Amino acid sequence: MASSSSLTLSQAVFSPSLPRHGSSSSSSPSISFSTFSGLKSTPFTSSHRRILPSTTVTKQHFSVRASSAVETLEKTDAAIVEKSVNTIRFLAIDAVEKANSGHPGLPMGCAPMGHILYDEVMKYNPKNPYWFNRDRFVLSAGHGCMLQYALLHLAGYDSVQEDDLKSFRQWGSKIPGHPENFETPGVEVTTGPLGQGIANAVGLAVAEKHLAARFNKPDAEIVDHYTYVILGDGCQMEGISNEACSLAGHWGLGKLIAFYDDNHISIDGDTEIAFTEDVSARFEALGWHVIWVKNGNTGYDEIRAAIKEAKAVKDKPTMIKVTTTIGFGSPNKANSYSVHGSALGAKEVEATRNNLGWPYEPFHVPEDVKSHWSRHTPEGAALETEWNAKFAEYEKKYAEEAADLKSIITGELPAGWEKALPTYTPESPADATRNLSQQNLNALAKVVPGFLGGSADLASSNMTLLKMFGDFQKNTPEERNLRFGVREHGMGAICNGIALHSLGLIPYCATFFVFTDYMRGAMRISALSEAGVIYVMTHDSIGLGEDGPTHQPIEHLASFRAMPNILMFRPADGNETAGAYKVAVLKRKTPSILALSRQKLPQLVGTSIEGAAKGGYIVSDNSSGNKPDVILIGTGSELEIAVKAAEELKKEGKTVRVVSFVCWELYDEQSAEYKESVLPSSVTARVSIEAGSTFGWQKFVGDKGKAIGVDGFGASAPADKIYKEFGITAEAVVAAAKQVS
Amino acid sequence: MASSSSLTLSQAVFSPSLPRHGSSSSSSPSISFSTFSGLKSTPFTSSHRRILPSTTVTKQHFSVRASSAVETLEKTDAAIVEKSVNTIRFLAIDAVEKANSGHPGLPMGCAPMGHILYDEVMKYNPKNPYWFNRDRFVLSAGHGCMLQYALLHLAGYDSVQEDDLKSFRQWGSKIPGHPENFETPGVEVTTGPLGQGIANAVGLAVAEKHLAARFNKPDAEIVDHYTYVILGDGCQMEGISNEACSLAGHWGLGKLIAFYDDNHISIDGDTEIAFTEDVSARFEALGWHVIWVKNGNTGYDEIRAAIKEAKAVKDKPTMIKVTTTIGFGSPNKANSYSVHGSALGAKEVEATRNNLGWPYEPFHVPEDVKSHWSRHTPEGAALETEWNAKFAEYEKKYAEEAADLKSIITGELPAGWEKALPTYTPESPADATRNLSQQNLNALAKVVPGFLGGSADLASSNMTLLKMFGDFQKNTPEERNLRFGVREHGMGAICNGIALHSLGLIPYCATFFVFTDYMRGAMRISALSEAGVIYVMTHDSIGLGEDGPTHQPIEHLASFRAMPNILMFRPADGNETAGAYKVAVLKRKTPSILALSRQKLPQLVGTSIEGAAKGGYIVSDNSSGNKPDVILIGTGSELEIAVKAAEELKKEGKTVRVVSFVCWELYDEQSAEYKESVLPSSVTARVSIEAGSTFGWQKFVGDKGKAIGVDGFGASAPADKIYKEFGITAEAVVAAAKQVS
Repeated sequence: MASSSSLTLSQAVFSPSLPRHGSSSSSSPSISFSTFSGLKSTPFTSSHRRILPSTTVTKQHFSVRASSAVETLEKTDAAIVEKSVNTIRFLAIDAVEKANSGHPGLPMGCAPMGHILYDEVMKYNPKNPYWFNRDRFVLSAGHGCMLQYALLHLAGYDSVQEDDLKSFRQWGSKIPGHPENFETPGVEVTTGPLGQGIANAVGLAVAEKHLAARFNKPDAEIVDHYTYVILGDGCQMEGISNEACSLAGHWGLGKLIAFYDDNHISIDGDTEIAFTEDVSARFEALGWHVIWVKNGNTGYDEIRAAIKEAKAVKDKPTMIKVTTTIGFGSPNKANSYSVHGSALGAKEVEATRNNLGWPYEPFHVPEDVKSHWSRHTPEGAALETEWNAKFAEYEKKYAEEAADLKSIITGELPAGWEKALPTYTPESPADATRNLSQQNLNALAKVVPGFLGGSADLASSNMTLLKMFGDFQKNTPEERNLRFGVREHGMGAICNGIALHSLGLIPYCATFFVFTDYMRGAMRISALSEAGVIYVMTHDSIGLGEDGPTHQPIEHLASFRAMPNILMFRPADGNETAGAYKVAVLKRKTPSILALSRQKLPQLVGTSIEGAAKGGYIVSDNSSGNKPDVILIGTGSELEIAVKAAEELKKEGKTVRVVSFVCWELYDEQSAEYKESVLPSSVTARVSIEAGSTFGWQKFVGDKGKAIGVDGFGASAPADKIYKEFGITAEAVVAAAKQVS
Repeated sequence: MASSSSLTLSQAVFSPSLPRHGSSSSSSPSISFSTFSGLKSTPFTSSHRRILPSTTVTKQHFSVRASSAVETLEKTDAAIVEKSVNTIRFLAIDAVEKANSGHPGLPMGCAPMGHILYDEVMKYNPKNPYWFNRDRFVLSAGHGCMLQYALLHLAGYDSVQEDDLKSFRQWGSKIPGHPENFETPGVEVTTGPLGQGIANAVGLAVAEKHLAARFNKPDAEIVDHYTYVILGDGCQMEGISNEACSLAGHWGLGKLIAFYDDNHISIDGDTEIAFTEDVSARFEALGWHVIWVKNGNTGYDEIRAAIKEAKAVKDKPTMIKVTTTIGFGSPNKANSYSVHGSALGAKEVEATRNNLGWPYEPFHVPEDVKSHWSRHTPEGAALETEWNAKFAEYEKKYAEEAADLKSIITGELPAGWEKALPTYTPESPADATRNLSQQNLNALAKVVPGFLGGSADLASSNMTLLKMFGDFQKNTPEERNLRFGVREHGMGAICNGIALHSLGLIPYCATFFVFTDYMRGAMRISALSEAGVIYVMTHDSIGLGEDGPTHQPIEHLASFRAMPNILMFRPADGNETAGAYKVAVLKRKTPSILALSRQKLPQLVGTSIEGAAKGGYIVSDNSSGNKPDVILIGTGSELEIAVKAAEELKKEGKTVRVVSFVCWELYDEQSAEYKESVLPSSVTARVSIEAGSTFGWQKFVGDKGKAIGVDGFGASAPADKIYKEFGITAEAVVAAAKQVS
């Protein structure tokens, strides 16, 4: 780990690990931004209070941004606020109009709360979107992304220039159709699929609460930020949001403040047709503090007062229900679904310009609005400088903690961390890979400062408890065992939020492999948004036995092998499990799934961490000249079966190679030479065995090979019996090998 | 449609359509049961009140079962109830003990409410589990299935005999590790994955409310049953349950009564560690009536009174929170997680026997308990007989309605229904398959009485509105457009409940294809439980354009092709869309997914309903002797591209076959001869094109072929641009064809 105390603690190591786009697309451009070395000490009286540089044109009372919002403004200020809010509205209108695609309604309705957040409340540094101690903002209603792009543009983020606004939703644009953290610095997470964002925000707030509890000292509040989120009716209807918000209430995430854009319109019309529950009462039941801003369209002071109140409530998250008019300002389309997801059209844009008194050309930001917002660049730089100085002090007093926190911020792993991984020999006792996984988790938690996680109420089945730590709870947030309850989808999305909070936070989460079906929405966002979550998925096949077909994954391996940018591991024993964890920890931009057995498996001869890291490798071979009579391929619990079958075949004089295919995606990354050395094209006699769907296996066994697997649903019975009845046996492999060779 | 008025309206056509189990497993046994022709008229004074046959040993006041539960019992009755409840407990204990696997805790705690439901409240006919007007019961906390099996055994269902109890969780048993409707007549739906059951129950209650509103007459209440459900803490934590329960409240499902087994224990221990919300307040916020039974262990009268109160509330569903002790009766394990999911062990079984004063051998049902329950067989028969007589009267007066209702009950489609499907010629206007889908939906709703459905707040994008019907709402439940709100997972599970209510109810539901990720848990249960739901999934590829990668499915086609017993359709034009619907409507035991385009597609030469029904077929070919130079394979929107590429190649003198692969699963069912006629093994020059993951395509293009697709995430830009940049073009197909041939 870097030891210099002048290290800039930014989080901007952006380089996708796997190809992101389709076959012919170019890879993501590298992203650069200014950083501040921040070693000059400045006389700040409070870390919360922002000092206005002399260059700013605004009045002093605009400076109350961090810990409390102002409640009223002078008239001249009110006028500029109104103008700024309309600027936001028209940037959204104009960008959607030019793209002839997008969602103008939300930005028009939410511009007031957006303005107050970015101009008056949040602390951030526009020239370093990755400054560690920034407030986080999440637009859970991601379709309204032009709201956030307009705000980033006004605030001075380099990622959203005027030209970007004009290329909204076009090929190569930095501002895509929904907010994507990997495309637009300043966007924290990837939203659009409804409900994900609010759950990500819970994760961001968990990360803050945990890090603050671990690292803050009475004389140094080094971790201290809020997480703000705007969510809409759609997010509220999604089950994932109830899951995550129930946990947020349980954990008492006092620095999570959610704005519920209560506009009564969704795509199908008035929410009355499908959504008549009492949302506020539900949130109170979930343990939240609830405030209702009745006039979200022009009630700036109401919004400010609500934020102030929310901040005063320290032991509960707050939901501010803000009643707004979707498409506010559009004389003919406001308050209707027609303004939700389509451009207004030239005529209605004109009418809206007239209605709101907006004489400007498209994309124009009036000079006084520009000038008003211009202070955020120096102020943000000052905030970061201040924090850097504070951190330097902290580092002097608390060297060990500072080193851990640095590792968490930068993602740089402690030297030699991988030596902590357990190793096994064929003499090591047979064990279920879920138990071997627990050995790895506990070994990693000792050496990796940002390692934390838990299970969706299956800790004792998934074997995920970190024995040296207690539970992360409302009053013990410094601990690292997360208790998610039976909330898989929320769990995945919360882990995305944790992972995207800081590069060195490595969250893992767990359930039965079959229940990835409940959290696939979040897992896909892990893959897309480059959140290196580790999914610990046990009970990975019919081998779980008596619980039966509702609990037995069949198609799940194939379904994840087909998903971009996610590593699907199925380790066979201890060494392969350790190998999977080694890669999973290193791949911070690519999530990993480990499919682990419930049942005991032997430690095999020939497996290795290094082999596993190649995805597919030779475990044993009695042939020469790279030309065995037959190649047997297995994964996970069936590698043992392949090995047994090979022994039988060898007894009959065959030359046999056994190959483990622990991770197809890693194998695909290997050189053609390596692949030829594992699966020589001249050897077409190949048999694969895996207790799951054979779908996709033809890629490796080829036209003349045979894939043994399970292509129907499982059954409820003891595991051995099911394996036998389903023909997942060494005998079946031997018979198939004879057929194909 | 059968016209005889003596038709037995049972729903017992049980024959799985696709292989259910793994390669070597045998197919499900055929299931038989007694039926009642029920034409004798009996002098019942009320359809709700049950008449006790003279053989019964119980007292008359046990007969008040349907419309109101009794509130107190005489002492002798109380003793037999207690004994019956302990019988249930010990059948569960003994079965789990013998299997050495299972979940005794819930049955021990929930035996009292289970007893009251099956012995005092519910109307059913044990000898015909499919009698149409029965009350439905769902054990959402499916792991506690021994509760339901014990109740079915006592009630006289043939599906659960003593030998079955002794083979719990064993190979070939009729009572698997979680409740499975396709294995155990008497089990309505398949549960285990938490939260599914309560959402299924909402669907069952929707079906009842809809059918009652459509078919009941002032003088004939022909549809009239309750839906009961037991759910636990785990179900409550799952987002899907909040989604479904929000809709249940919105729809005012007064005949849905849910028992919340509030035992404060989940697998990880006390629910305090992850679940501290106020569940009752949340349900009130969702529009439910809420009752708390504080003593669920021995408070029989409290439970009875709660049910009576619940039935009196007609305009809201009711949640009865029943506080119980998990593992009640076990002196050392009650109220702990250790009794949740493991056998008690011989010693603790003995201790529990002593504690509850249970001197009997394992699996013993005391004679007086047997005798007490024996009345349900004649009573159930009488109930069905009564109903059949009532239906015969109804049929005389309301022939048309009776015909429709019969079709819904039996699943027999009206003769000639398929003629309603629209047909297209190459001259028909180009259109998006989502629009062509709407033409089919509206055509089908006109001729298929049980056709109904809707979208998760995307009706105007998915094009799913039935134009001749209004919205199914609290006060208009006779209508057929369901408005699910943004609740995909709940939607899928509700549709499972509707489909499993009556064979002829054919629910469809819709969202963007990518959001199948949100509802995959429910979709897998459709496939497993043989619920023929039709999934209308639009915006099926990068072709949706500007919304970008969060909205663009990539791996989804592959992920469903790998799932057992579900048909994944991707039609290319009008004829193929109609073909997909034809199969989807016919396959009542297999759900179908239709992936449909947002963008316009031409009506192609050579497509057909018949071709689509074969899954893969030749669209055009200029070769002879079944030996084209190259075979081009496309699906959906890319079939047009394959056709264009073929034209180019033909210009250059090649012989080219174009094959449409609209449904892989149907193609797999065809004969080897047919397959050879479509993809002759001698022709290895094959190119596939599909705007999705190439995963799995090697099966059809072979070792020497080439699959063109998208193996990374999509991008935000106009569709044409993305297609071009990603190389999903005729030029790419032509180039690949030249490479491989």
